[in-house]
Amino acid sequence: MSEANRIYLDYAASTPLSARARHAMQAARGRGNPSSIHEEGRRARARFEEARVRIARVINAAPSEVVVTGSGSESDTLALIGAARAYRARGSHILVSAIEHKAVLKAAETLKRDGFSVDYVRPDREGRITPESIKALVRPDTTVISVMYANNEVGTIEPIAKIASLLREIRGSAPTPLLHTDACQAPGQVAVDVQALGVDLMSINSSKVYGPKGVGALYVRRGVMLEPIVGGEQERGLRGGTESVELAAGFAAALEEAEALREREAPRLCALRDSCIEAILQRIPGSHLNGHRSERLPGNVHVSFEGVEGESILLLMDAAGIACATGSACNSFDLAPSHVLVALGEEAGLSHGSIRLTFGRETTQRHVEYGVEQLERIIGFLRGVSALTHPLAV
Amino acid sequence: MSEANRIYLDYAASTPLSARARHAMQAARGRGNPSSIHEEGRRARARFEEARVRIARVINAAPSEVVVTGSGSESDTLALIGAARAYRARGSHILVSAIEHKAVLKAAETLKRDGFSVDYVRPDREGRITPESIKALVRPDTTVISVMYANNEVGTIEPIAKIASLLREIRGSAPTPLLHTDACQAPGQVAVDVQALGVDLMSINSSKVYGPKGVGALYVRRGVMLEPIVGGEQERGLRGGTESVELAAGFAAALEEAEALREREAPRLCALRDSCIEAILQRIPGSHLNGHRSERLPGNVHVSFEGVEGESILLLMDAAGIACATGSACNSFDLAPSHVLVALGEEAGLSHGSIRLTFGRETTQRHVEYGVEQLERIIGFLRGVSALTHPLAV
Repeated sequence: MSEANRIYLDYAASTPLSARARHAMQAARGRGNPSSIHEEGRRARARFEEARVRIARVINAAPSEVVVTGSGSESDTLALIGAARAYRARGSHILVSAIEHKAVLKAAETLKRDGFSVDYVRPDREGRITPESIKALVRPDTTVISVMYANNEVGTIEPIAKIASLLREIRGSAPTPLLHTDACQAPGQVAVDVQALGVDLMSINSSKVYGPKGVGALYVRRGVMLEPIVGGEQERGLRGGTESVELAAGFAAALEEAEALREREAPRLCALRDSCIEAILQRIPGSHLNGHRSERLPGNVHVSFEGVEGESILLLMDAAGIACATGSACNSFDLAPSHVLVALGEEAGLSHGSIRLTFGRETTQRHVEYGVEQLERIIGFLRGVSALTHPLAV
Repeated sequence: MSEANRIYLDYAASTPLSARARHAMQAARGRGNPSSIHEEGRRARARFEEARVRIARVINAAPSEVVVTGSGSESDTLALIGAARAYRARGSHILVSAIEHKAVLKAAETLKRDGFSVDYVRPDREGRITPESIKALVRPDTTVISVMYANNEVGTIEPIAKIASLLREIRGSAPTPLLHTDACQAPGQVAVDVQALGVDLMSINSSKVYGPKGVGALYVRRGVMLEPIVGGEQERGLRGGTESVELAAGFAAALEEAEALREREAPRLCALRDSCIEAILQRIPGSHLNGHRSERLPGNVHVSFEGVEGESILLLMDAAGIACATGSACNSFDLAPSHVLVALGEEAGLSHGSIRLTFGRETTQRHVEYGVEQLERIIGFLRGVSALTHPLAV
């Protein structure tokens, strides 16, 4: 089946490149290296810095507070490891939520091996990391705290601004731990204003906002120190590697476009999401919504089904012409139950039977209706198979 | 002046995107994430793995030995820090040449801060790292050695294969230290066959071979262990971040094209290089060639001029419509003399007066002649200015 005839409900895994981003990339093409002094280099530098200014404007930061990286994962790693190492003299305790993206969890593991102490903040059953749960774990030697803005699997939006103000409150005049948020899923769906959020570090990623893959950014509040992960002279020593003017320009254009469309798209996606959730819960017995009902990404539906396996659902949906996911694409080859669902308290067996449908710019009500229809058919079919082969199990 | 009217003699800093690479990128475009299980994901995965196969073929490696990264700098960092950390139980002594790219030197500094011991191998006056100089410094606890294949500033080609066999010889049946080579400047100019070179790790980079910026690769010989720098599930856990199918496909096409054109291009560039060197040394008094006369990248000319400053030459060349460099673009904003020239034994004052001209596919004999002509005029002019303002200094 050609891509055009299929229904793509996996925008959280990857968004198509927008026409505006593609044009921005074409316009930014040139043969110079932005670090060269000659005319070609200066022209490349000007275009690269313009992209930085535009990225900064969308997130309400100063251009000098934006480091262009190669991905959201790299931004997460630079934030966590970079800050933990830079502030080691002040303390070596790190706090991360248990439902973070793998890039954050892997960075935390690396820090642990290097002698840091790491605590994991558990979410409630709806995937919320409460300010109180942070308060209970923060210590005088805590230097970095990482809580994602919106969970990539179950879609729950975290109370980042409240966590930020709580941290300032409990510390008084003493230095507060740095607050990092992985906001890769957020732009275009919820506001990504670093001042309103009150964060010190924020990861964003181009490939989730209809921009090119291979570029991301890290917001670094003025005065916050980081040790680089990939050393070099670029990005004021924070990130080595020849800068791609094209990727930065494409990312900037995509991010601006996503922000400009948000006012129209977010309510539209919310309506699709709510009608989808309602239809599934109503029409498919033994279905459960994962994540928070309302504090949830506009484009995210994540449901579990009793007595069936997620991968089977996904493959049959795929055969019916619908692209969706069981959870994060980054862990799709891992047969273990999702660490996010485990943290939410779903029992491991049930967590296998979950499906994530994520909506984007091309998603229509008709797509959602067809998706629910097929899901209903497939769940029924799988339960029938299961009943035939394991008559006593269902 | 439009780019088309200018003469670009800075291919070592950045190469333009080739038409073939651009077409490969367009053909590879799609909306899937290669880690997704559905059809869009599988299609993206197939294209990504095809790119890996093609990259592997050019460097004579198995596809499973190729890790796709975000840049040459990232490949260098992953090789050095990744291997040093993975083999820490075996030893903590690292050997790097003093004329490595900044990415390697920064990685070595990070390792030093983490308790590793690092020795720097000094080159001879022509920039050669001899096997003997390695032998003199290698210790039983040496785990990683990094010597670049061809120096990015002075163009000297290092005897990597000889260093590799010497290492096997002196160790006998004991495990030899891993040999990493930064080959970012090599493809398209000299052969990049990992078996012939005998290396365990090799960095390559797309932006130096007429491919897109923002992608590189690291060859990792089967059985060699690495700790990831950016954690995640991708690249078998060695490099987190959503893979860019487009960038990988563009890089693979560019690398293949560079290798296919090498037989024709390398001798052509050598001829341009030799005529350029000869003309400069003959026509401009007080000029000196840096690097090795014959064991040198086909497209590299690096010369010093007594009594003038490199940046002034570069800026006047730029005004005359010629793009060139004083040394590595990555350090161009650093006014300190190049670490490479310092290591070669040039006195710091003299090293300021050097210029690097690097040739590529669009360079013609006419470009070279015009370049030398302008260089002659500019050096004469600068020496005149210097004589007027500091009459006793020259």
